[in-house]
Amino acid sequence: MKVGGKAFRTIWPTPDFDAVEIIDQRALPHEFRIERLADVDAVAHAIKDMWLRGAPLIGAAAAYGVALAVKHDSSPTALAKACEKLAATRPTAVNLRHALDAMRVQLAPLPQSLRARAAFAKAASFADADVAINQAIGAHGLKIIEEIAAKKPGGRVNVLTHCNAGWLATVDWGTATAPIYMAHDKGIDVHVYVDETRPRNQGAALTAWELGEHGVPHTLIVDNAGGHLMQRGEVDLVIVGTDRVTQRGDVANKIGTYLKALAAHDNNVPFYVALPSPTIDWRIEDGFADIPIEERSGEEVLYVQSAVGPVRIAPSATKAANPAFDVTPARLVTGFITERGVCPASKAGLLSLFPEAKR
Amino acid sequence: MKVGGKAFRTIWPTPDFDAVEIIDQRALPHEFRIERLADVDAVAHAIKDMWLRGAPLIGAAAAYGVALAVKHDSSPTALAKACEKLAATRPTAVNLRHALDAMRVQLAPLPQSLRARAAFAKAASFADADVAINQAIGAHGLKIIEEIAAKKPGGRVNVLTHCNAGWLATVDWGTATAPIYMAHDKGIDVHVYVDETRPRNQGAALTAWELGEHGVPHTLIVDNAGGHLMQRGEVDLVIVGTDRVTQRGDVANKIGTYLKALAAHDNNVPFYVALPSPTIDWRIEDGFADIPIEERSGEEVLYVQSAVGPVRIAPSATKAANPAFDVTPARLVTGFITERGVCPASKAGLLSLFPEAKR
Repeated sequence: MKVGGKAFRTIWPTPDFDAVEIIDQRALPHEFRIERLADVDAVAHAIKDMWLRGAPLIGAAAAYGVALAVKHDSSPTALAKACEKLAATRPTAVNLRHALDAMRVQLAPLPQSLRARAAFAKAASFADADVAINQAIGAHGLKIIEEIAAKKPGGRVNVLTHCNAGWLATVDWGTATAPIYMAHDKGIDVHVYVDETRPRNQGAALTAWELGEHGVPHTLIVDNAGGHLMQRGEVDLVIVGTDRVTQRGDVANKIGTYLKALAAHDNNVPFYVALPSPTIDWRIEDGFADIPIEERSGEEVLYVQSAVGPVRIAPSATKAANPAFDVTPARLVTGFITERGVCPASKAGLLSLFPEAKR
Repeated sequence: MKVGGKAFRTIWPTPDFDAVEIIDQRALPHEFRIERLADVDAVAHAIKDMWLRGAPLIGAAAAYGVALAVKHDSSPTALAKACEKLAATRPTAVNLRHALDAMRVQLAPLPQSLRARAAFAKAASFADADVAINQAIGAHGLKIIEEIAAKKPGGRVNVLTHCNAGWLATVDWGTATAPIYMAHDKGIDVHVYVDETRPRNQGAALTAWELGEHGVPHTLIVDNAGGHLMQRGEVDLVIVGTDRVTQRGDVANKIGTYLKALAAHDNNVPFYVALPSPTIDWRIEDGFADIPIEERSGEEVLYVQSAVGPVRIAPSATKAANPAFDVTPARLVTGFITERGVCPASKAGLLSLFPEAKR
C-alpha cells in the first residue's frame, strides 16, 4: 500500500540478495524508518523484538531468514539451526511454523549449491502468495460491507477492528483491512473505529497510521469503548485478524479480541475474522487446550511507548501480568472471511471451503 | 487509609474553614501532593479537571464547595449560582446532584447569618456518612470473599476490579475496595487484578498505588486481559464501583465495565457492584435511555499521562472518540453490595433493602 504516495511492501530482499529490508514498526507512527536485516540472527531478533509483527508477515520474514542463513551456510546443520532459532521467536502464530516447514521441504532434497537461490525464490513466492490471499480476502469481505451499505442508503458503514491486522501485519493489503481498503477505494463511505490495543498500542500506532496514509476515515478509541459503541448502534460490523484458528473455529488473536466478540454477540453485531488459510491449524480442535498463549514481559504494561520513548504509568513497586493473546470461541464468530470465500466458524464451515483438509 | 504510614482522608477542611484540602490525584502514582482549594471556583475546577474523582468524593467535594461559596456570600443568589456551577462539572455521577440538593434543603430555610456554619457542618456530616457507608459495604462484601476463601483452602482469592472505586474515589475505605481491605486486614490471602483503565489509567495510577500503600498483593493488567484470565479460571470474583444505578439495576460505571461483566457472565464468575445507596437514582428505570454518558476530550486517548507528562501515542492526523462511561445491564450483575447488605440487581432486590424508596 502507499506511504507518502509511494507503494511499499513490508518486506523485500535487497537487489543483490545479501539482506532483506523491512518497515521498522517500532518507530511508527512517529517516524517512517526502513531497517536492513543482513542475517538470520537479525531476522530472529527483529521478529522476537517486534520490529515487525503480524502472523502473515512473521511467516514471510521467517522464510527470508532461512534464505539468508542458507546463503551464508547451505549445510543441513545450518538449515536446522536457522529453523530452530526462528521457530523460538514467537510461540503463538502458526504461520511461522508453516513457513519454516515449507522452506525445509523445499530445500532439503536439493544439492547444497542450489539451495540459496531456491530459498530466496521460495521466500519470494511465499510473500507473493500472502499478497494474493489478502486480495482475495478483500474481495470476499467487500461483499459483506457492500450488503451493509445497501441497507444504509446515504449512511456510513462503521467497522470496528482490534490490533493491527492491516497491511503492516502482512506483506501487503492486510487481512482485516483488505475489505476496508477495497470498500474505500470503491467509493463506499466506510469509517473505522480503531481499538488502540494495549499494551503495545498497535491500533493507535499502526492501524490508525496506515488507514490515515491511505485516506480512510477512522476514529481511535480505547479498548474499553467498543462495547458501549455497539450498545449504541455505532458499529455495523467487527472485522479482526487472527494468529491461529483451530479446525473447529476457535480464534487466537490479540488479547482483548474475546471481549469484543462477547459485546458483538450481545448486541447482534456481525463479528468476522479475516482468515488466510495458512493461519488454520488443522492439527488441533480446542483453542483453549491446544494453543499456547505467549506471556510477554510486564514491562509492556508498566510502560507506554511514546514519541519520547517508554514512559512509566504505574507505581514503582507494582508488577504486571501480560498475556499477549486470547482465544475467542467459535460460537461468538459470525463467519470467517477466507481467500476462498466466507464460511461459518465451524469444522463443517472450514471444510466446505478447504475439502482437501479432510485427511 | 494510610499513606506512608499516616492516616488520610481524601478531603478535609482547614482548621479555620477558609479552604478545603484534597489529595491531588493528577500527581499519583508518581508524587503524593496535597492541594488547597479556597473557593467554589477552585472546587468546581478541581472536579471538572479531575484533580479528584469518584462519585462519592465528588459529592463530598461539591458539599464543601457550597460551604465555601456560602461563607463568602450567603445570599440565595450566591447559593444558587454555586450549585449551578458545581452541577455543571460532571454530568454522569448522581452523588453530585444528591449533595447539592441536600445542601440546598439544609441551607435554604436558615437565616443568612447561620448558613456558613451550617454548611460546613453539613458537608462534614456528608463526608462522615460516606465513610460509614463504605465501612458497611466492606463488612457485607467481606462475607462474599470469606465464602470463596472457604472453598479454596490454602488458595488465594483473586478479585478483578476496574478503574478506581478505592478509597481515593471516596472519602475513605472506597466502595469496591472496602471488602478487599477488610479481607486483607483479616489475614485472608486476597490478590487483586487491577485493570489499568484507559484512557485515564485510574487503575494503574490510583488503585495500584493505594493497594500497594496498604500492602495488598496486586497485579496490573491491561483492560484487554480480564476476559482471558476469567476463561483460565484466574478470577474468583469481580467487584467494581458505580457512578449511577437505576431502580431496575442498570449500572453506569467507567467505560469498559460492561465488557468485564460480559466476560464474567460468560465464565460464571460472580460480578458484584459495590453500591452506596446515594448512588441509586430512584427516578429512572432504563440505564440506556436515561443516563447521560459524558463524552470527554479525545486528547485523553491520543495522549497518555506519564511521569514526564502527556505523551502522544497516535499519528498527528488521527482523531479520537472518548465516551467516559458505559452502562452494564442488570442481567449481567450477580448482586449489589450496599451498606444494608447484598441484594440481586433488580428493582425488587433494591426495594428489599431500601423499602422507603417505594413512593
